Amino acid sequence: MNSPAADRDTGLLSPVRAGTAVERAVSDQAWIQAMLDAEAALARAQARLGTVPKEAADTITTCARAESVSTREIAVASRDSANPVVKLVQSFTQVVANADPEAAEYVHRGSTSQDIFDTAAMLVSAQALRIVRRDLSRVIRAMEKTATCHRDTIMAGRTLGLHAVPTTFGLKAAGWRQLAAEADQRLADLLDGGLPVSLGGAAGTLAAYLEYASIDGGSGKDAPVEQKERFNYLDLLVDAFARETGLATPALPWHALRTPVADLAHALSFTAGTLGKIAADVLVLTRSEVGELAEPAAAGRGASSAMPHKRNPALATLIRSAAVQVPALASVLGLCMAAEDERSAGLWQAEWQPLREILRLVGGAAHTAAELAEGLEVHSERMRANVSLTQGQIVSERVAAHLAPALGKVTAKKVLTEASETASRQGIPLDKALAAIPDVARVFSREDLTALCDPGHYTGAASWLVDRALRRTCPPEASA
Amino acid sequence: MNSPAADRDTGLLSPVRAGTAVERAVSDQAWIQAMLDAEAALARAQARLGTVPKEAADTITTCARAESVSTREIAVASRDSANPVVKLVQSFTQVVANADPEAAEYVHRGSTSQDIFDTAAMLVSAQALRIVRRDLSRVIRAMEKTATCHRDTIMAGRTLGLHAVPTTFGLKAAGWRQLAAEADQRLADLLDGGLPVSLGGAAGTLAAYLEYASIDGGSGKDAPVEQKERFNYLDLLVDAFARETGLATPALPWHALRTPVADLAHALSFTAGTLGKIAADVLVLTRSEVGELAEPAAAGRGASSAMPHKRNPALATLIRSAAVQVPALASVLGLCMAAEDERSAGLWQAEWQPLREILRLVGGAAHTAAELAEGLEVHSERMRANVSLTQGQIVSERVAAHLAPALGKVTAKKVLTEASETASRQGIPLDKALAAIPDVARVFSREDLTALCDPGHYTGAASWLVDRALRRTCPPEASA
Amino acid sequence: MNSPAADRDTGLLSPVRAGTAVERAVSDQAWIQAMLDAEAALARAQARLGTVPKEAADTITTCARAESVSTREIAVASRDSANPVVKLVQSFTQVVANADPEAAEYVHRGSTSQDIFDTAAMLVSAQALRIVRRDLSRVIRAMEKTATCHRDTIMAGRTLGLHAVPTTFGLKAAGWRQLAAEADQRLADLLDGGLPVSLGGAAGTLAAYLEYASIDGGSGKDAPVEQKERFNYLDLLVDAFARETGLATPALPWHALRTPVADLAHALSFTAGTLGKIAADVLVLTRSEVGELAEPAAAGRGASSAMPHKRNPALATLIRSAAVQVPALASVLGLCMAAEDERSAGLWQAEWQPLREILRLVGGAAHTAAELAEGLEVHSERMRANVSLTQGQIVSERVAAHLAPALGKVTAKKVLTEASETASRQGIPLDKALAAIPDVARVFSREDLTALCDPGHYTGAASWLVDRALRRTCPPEASA
Amino acid sequence: MNSPAADRDTGLLSPVRAGTAVERAVSDQAWIQAMLDAEAALARAQARLGTVPKEAADTITTCARAESVSTREIAVASRDSANPVVKLVQSFTQVVANADPEAAEYVHRGSTSQDIFDTAAMLVSAQALRIVRRDLSRVIRAMEKTATCHRDTIMAGRTLGLHAVPTTFGLKAAGWRQLAAEADQRLADLLDGGLPVSLGGAAGTLAAYLEYASIDGGSGKDAPVEQKERFNYLDLLVDAFARETGLATPALPWHALRTPVADLAHALSFTAGTLGKIAADVLVLTRSEVGELAEPAAAGRGASSAMPHKRNPALATLIRSAAVQVPALASVLGLCMAAEDERSAGLWQAEWQPLREILRLVGGAAHTAAELAEGLEVHSERMRANVSLTQGQIVSERVAAHLAPALGKVTAKKVLTEASETASRQGIPLDKALAAIPDVARVFSREDLTALCDPGHYTGAASWLVDRALRRTCPPEASA
Repeated sequence: MNSPAADRDTGLLSPVRAGTAVERAVSDQAWIQAMLDAEAALARAQARLGTVPKEAADTITTCARAESVSTREIAVASRDSANPVVKLVQSFTQVVANADPEAAEYVHRGSTSQDIFDTAAMLVSAQALRIVRRDLSRVIRAMEKTATCHRDTIMAGRTLGLHAVPTTFGLKAAGWRQLAAEADQRLADLLDGGLPVSLGGAAGTLAAYLEYASIDGGSGKDAPVEQKERFNYLDLLVDAFARETGLATPALPWHALRTPVADLAHALSFTAGTLGKIAADVLVLTRSEVGELAEPAAAGRGASSAMPHKRNPALATLIRSAAVQVPALASVLGLCMAAEDERSAGLWQAEWQPLREILRLVGGAAHTAAELAEGLEVHSERMRANVSLTQGQIVSERVAAHLAPALGKVTAKKVLTEASETASRQGIPLDKALAAIPDVARVFSREDLTALCDPGHYTGAASWLVDRALRRTCPPEASA
Repeated sequence: MNSPAADRDTGLLSPVRAGTAVERAVSDQAWIQAMLDAEAALARAQARLGTVPKEAADTITTCARAESVSTREIAVASRDSANPVVKLVQSFTQVVANADPEAAEYVHRGSTSQDIFDTAAMLVSAQALRIVRRDLSRVIRAMEKTATCHRDTIMAGRTLGLHAVPTTFGLKAAGWRQLAAEADQRLADLLDGGLPVSLGGAAGTLAAYLEYASIDGGSGKDAPVEQKERFNYLDLLVDAFARETGLATPALPWHALRTPVADLAHALSFTAGTLGKIAADVLVLTRSEVGELAEPAAAGRGASSAMPHKRNPALATLIRSAAVQVPALASVLGLCMAAEDERSAGLWQAEWQPLREILRLVGGAAHTAAELAEGLEVHSERMRANVSLTQGQIVSERVAAHLAPALGKVTAKKVLTEASETASRQGIPLDKALAAIPDVARVFSREDLTALCDPGHYTGAASWLVDRALRRTCPPEASA
Repeated sequence: MNSPAADRDTGLLSPVRAGTAVERAVSDQAWIQAMLDAEAALARAQARLGTVPKEAADTITTCARAESVSTREIAVASRDSANPVVKLVQSFTQVVANADPEAAEYVHRGSTSQDIFDTAAMLVSAQALRIVRRDLSRVIRAMEKTATCHRDTIMAGRTLGLHAVPTTFGLKAAGWRQLAAEADQRLADLLDGGLPVSLGGAAGTLAAYLEYASIDGGSGKDAPVEQKERFNYLDLLVDAFARETGLATPALPWHALRTPVADLAHALSFTAGTLGKIAADVLVLTRSEVGELAEPAAAGRGASSAMPHKRNPALATLIRSAAVQVPALASVLGLCMAAEDERSAGLWQAEWQPLREILRLVGGAAHTAAELAEGLEVHSERMRANVSLTQGQIVSERVAAHLAPALGKVTAKKVLTEASETASRQGIPLDKALAAIPDVARVFSREDLTALCDPGHYTGAASWLVDRALRRTCPPEASA
Repeated sequence: MNSPAADRDTGLLSPVRAGTAVERAVSDQAWIQAMLDAEAALARAQARLGTVPKEAADTITTCARAESVSTREIAVASRDSANPVVKLVQSFTQVVANADPEAAEYVHRGSTSQDIFDTAAMLVSAQALRIVRRDLSRVIRAMEKTATCHRDTIMAGRTLGLHAVPTTFGLKAAGWRQLAAEADQRLADLLDGGLPVSLGGAAGTLAAYLEYASIDGGSGKDAPVEQKERFNYLDLLVDAFARETGLATPALPWHALRTPVADLAHALSFTAGTLGKIAADVLVLTRSEVGELAEPAAAGRGASSAMPHKRNPALATLIRSAAVQVPALASVLGLCMAAEDERSAGLWQAEWQPLREILRLVGGAAHTAAELAEGLEVHSERMRANVSLTQGQIVSERVAAHLAPALGKVTAKKVLTEASETASRQGIPLDKALAAIPDVARVFSREDLTALCDPGHYTGAASWLVDRALRRTCPPEASA
């Protein structure tokens, strides 16, 4: 038990993300790298403005490699200060000092743990979001094809688990695509300005950045930068930091104003819900008795340890396992908005692991959904067979509409309810049961009834809705 | 215990919203009214398109008054069908039939429970959001004044509960305002296109609307509207329904695509977090030992049942009580996105009460926050006194920056840590402790040290940030 | 909109509990009554110990009727003090003063809001728990019958939505019963000592109770009760209060030690999970294609507003709607344990509505489950038909076990996987597919294979487990 | 980025548990080991009953070492089957086959993934619980000392953030201890019978165990064990498996009856709430203006990256960060109770990571709390100073009680409210303000008033409650 791997979490209990790209993108090492990237970007931004020597910034940038510090050592030491930045800055300063002692003086200049950590969190999140979007775009494209291909494939529309009226599989797929496109839009919005750098200094006043600028940029404490210029400097610094990191500029230092984290929680929870909706439908439609869908076949996929005949819907199962966890994790991020003071004692720290967990669960689910969407087997003959299962009862709504003018709405519904019961009890088609009712027979011939009870005549606007949805919601990314 | 009130929930256990406008706007009666408004709007929309007689639509509209049905009776009967619409339609049809039996035939024409319920939910939510926005706008304006007024009021910036570096109360207020403006923006976005009518029919295919249009609009089943026209009809119907209700038009029928509910959950959870952040700060700053803020005095406000001297922060307490509940309730709405089939057996139904509860908790919290923000007592002298509590240690960061060029960053920090400990132990000012250290005394005169340790010289960009925030984020609504 | 009912919540959005006994037991009025019961019990307890005149206690008891105060007025006024007790005590004192001004002096003697509110919460919870247990006991008895009756009714065991191996419906019902009995046990444990009175005074030191005892019991401030006796008084007071209310005695005043609320959250969340498990199974088994169960038929039950043929699983739908909400609400109560100080500013207040909501959701779900369990229709012929759906593949595990000794475990499984695929593809029985494989045919005759593939021979210990479970877990309450 | 560590989670974002014993006890490797322990225990149990050769069981036991398989490979492969057991069994079978091909035939004999995984989950949880209990016992003992030592240390009792009435620090510590003892009791109860082995076979019928027993124990398929004996065999098998693992025997196979997981969620959430309560109090009392407590000093502990003077309450911050996360994670486990079928497609899989996360958050928090409790610095002089902050107002309740007999309860309270306001406004002691009121002066001399207003005379039963609590709740484990 003394091996170096003994304490680690490598995805064993979260197969939905094990081995996926997003898992790596949000690993401890990625987070360390992002914190070092933030330190380097800060030094370069300060160098642009002349308060840090360019050579120092270059050295800092060159040294900023996660491999040169020990992730685990930093993790354990972070207990002392309740955040990993204090120890990371110590270790990193040493690394820089080894290269150039003078440059080391400029590491973390004027900065504070939260500026580095939060900027890193945005960098990691942005990278994870880009990965998720790639997979969502695969889902969207696949669903576009499926919806087009199965535009007119009739199937049972189901409500509360029972056959309601017919629909088409194309409409279901178009709905999945619509949700996925909306999820993708929310992630795109975040990537377009919603993920800012964090730059506030110890309590959000930027005081130390100013102070060091005054010391470094002029001749020490006796020659402070003139007031107006001082603040102009800050605007330039935030902009330069944003440019160096590729992140947005915030309205205010946001140590205690957790908008970006709350928005991430929502966009990701929305994505999880979207993928969970798809998985829920797939699970229902792959059940042994339903058999309308099957997951893509692959060697070993869906195998059971005991039952050789099974081909388990492993992908949908994994996606659902993620979708069930995300809303609860997102609620933690919601709670953490209500942070006291300029930096909370506990609520800031409580965000980190849930944010990472949400990113990798959603990323894993999106990756899994892309596999599922692209290889989904559609058994349209089974859909057609199932739609006939109730021998016409699935269009009782339609028959009621046609009986209503003759019998009145209320009576028409009552007659249909009885005819449906008779048909079920006797195992006969609905049209036959209806033909046996004098009030009905007076109005409709047997041929009329047979035509009325044909599910194929009652898919409503399903196909038209497919066309409209595909036209309307085609996101630029997916159509490119 | 047989009184009619015996089963009711009137806000006793949720004082944050008891008696507020939003509570009424989301009451059972308001919900019933919204469902009847949806039925009436649907009939009028159909009348515009000629498939329902104008007279029938007028009668339906006239009859659509919540007072004419029994809320409680519908609530109890809703157990049978797992939703309140079935019984409401029965009762309402009877009411209409009493006025005009023919009109009664056109009630709920082609419709389904979920179309009516979800449309009503959007109507109720829109109304609640408008109320919340009114209160948020009061918060924003009040915070704008406070931030302006206290732009330069120095106070201790606090992190992890301890004095960190100085800040100004104006900056804190500007941060509150920023969050409130962002919350308001999210609600405004939802009101501007995010709350659509629901129109799908039994399983989202619009089949019955089409079928009835075909029957009602021509000469019965033998003369169906020509195919292309049929779908044109649907576009017109959705638009007309949207126009009659004031809601948006959806991309697709959304019975099983819960975007609007998920977005409501987020925008409201964000608002709760915003108000919770304000409350958390107020609670910390009103503590007996801190005393920097006090809640607005009002007769009876904050009274204790036992302790005559207390003036409890009742408003912030109420707000916090709401902020703690909302994220968990929002997580339920997140879970309900993953609904199976064309309508879920349980997940749709699980949304209703949490959505209402979130609306009224947030509405109550916003109302309470408006009272709090407009009457907040700021004790700036106490802020100033507290900032001096540590006799200069609050600016140790600044002193370290100035020592660094002479001693090196690491040594400077070490020296300051020791001086701070000495100062604390002996109860002396930091400058005095520093002056006693030879390495420091070599670099700085006693006067230098005193100036360096003056908290008033180290509020950084706080005031400038206030100016920038007020300029930048002024939402049109609040500035009007 | 000015009718007195306009602000109320009567269950319209929560049909799972609308009109059930528990809804009334946790109504605002019930809560007010419980608070008055606590006040009266306290006065009687003090009277027993001679520090309140017996006549005053009698008057207070007589006056303690919820009807004599206005619930709504108290609810609205509770905003001022952030709890309803302050205003209730004012109103109630006036009611008592009208009867006897002297008695009014003894209302709430030495007490504090939280003592009254928390004691009332325990009284309300105890009553709700008793109601839930009555319904659970109906579930348990019904499942006992079902398990006995269907001990040997073969059905498909399903994992990940697919047929796995055969089981019996009796074993499923025995599992439901087991969970329900365990839930009931957790509620019984709470009722047996887990719900204590709250008696702490303003900050949990009991100081005012002592002080009044000293003033009332002797000759004013100059003659304090002798030290040891003083504390003996407190022991007697807590015991008397517990006896008068029927609640337990706590280890310590628990204003800030929320054990009873946390334990309630668990026991009720466990119960919700139990009922949710039953509902989840019922929903799967009532699906149109499965048809193995149907909900009890009742006039109007399960009706759809649009589709006359449907008989929706309304009861299971309602239960599921509750089960999805409860864990999130319970998480709020978990969070509220971490309350600061002797009474939290916000976390105590955040408990009330979630606790009530959990009680009525679980109570409603239990009531609904009792209806469901007692009237559940079991279609055993359909179970038998479904078990044969895969033509023997459902026992592939068994066949593999028998092939293993001959072919080795790994090869046996591989052969079975291939035979299953062939059988599925060709639509033939598994035994036929197996017989065509030379390696298999060498070991087993066609008759052997047919016998091996008969699902009826492979229900394992299902029936025996039923017997064992019914014997073992029969709770005294249910068997009485 | 290709280093083997690149995908790992080593605690960087969760410092509360980084490097603690529980982190290792719940690591992927520990989980793998526990699954292998379960396989080995099953083989030994079968060997005891003669259906597996003793030599095979010995070989399996010897080979069952986590080091011999690749955790990461299994994690990634688990995506195919949606659980890690399928691949683990393959790898492990190969390991055993390398040692003895015949023994390999007996690996996972008759078993199913869930039996192995759930048994392993119980083994891991049991181990984690034992670690948590060790730390809780340190907390309990430390608090016992603190409560004893500070039995009479007066401090302000605070409600809603304000001074209410005096209490003692001993009573606060006794409350912490009480909660910790109750948490410990819940964990002890679970360890004593609440964590059972899982033994059900593919769908909970134990069919394959029976089948293999029949094949292995006699002469193949032709000589099945006689019926009654067969089931006797199962009882013996479950007992033997329980004995080999040290876990309890379940009432029924619990694949779909998630009692143990739900109970774990509660006991651990209760523990998190307990530790969160302690942390919340510590955070309030270490605030700069309060200063009544300080965290144990240690080199580097509580250091800030920017502010040399700070000694952050890092331990309480870490504990709070855990306490905020646990209830949400526990809610996921609550949701997963409502699993459909004999094994859920998604809800079972959703339990794993939240359960592990809860175990390590609570374990980390308990470890951190032990450090905190044992080294907590109590500044009793500051407590005494703070209690005098309001110059007597903190005992206004007491004065009101003494004025009541003379002035009536209502008037007495009113007088006190006014006197408190006057005293606050003028900055004078309460007794002086009271003495200036004629109605008061008539009843009480200045000396009376001074004595009445002395906080030291009004700690009520605080000290006595400490004695009682320490006597009463001493758990056997802690006192041993």
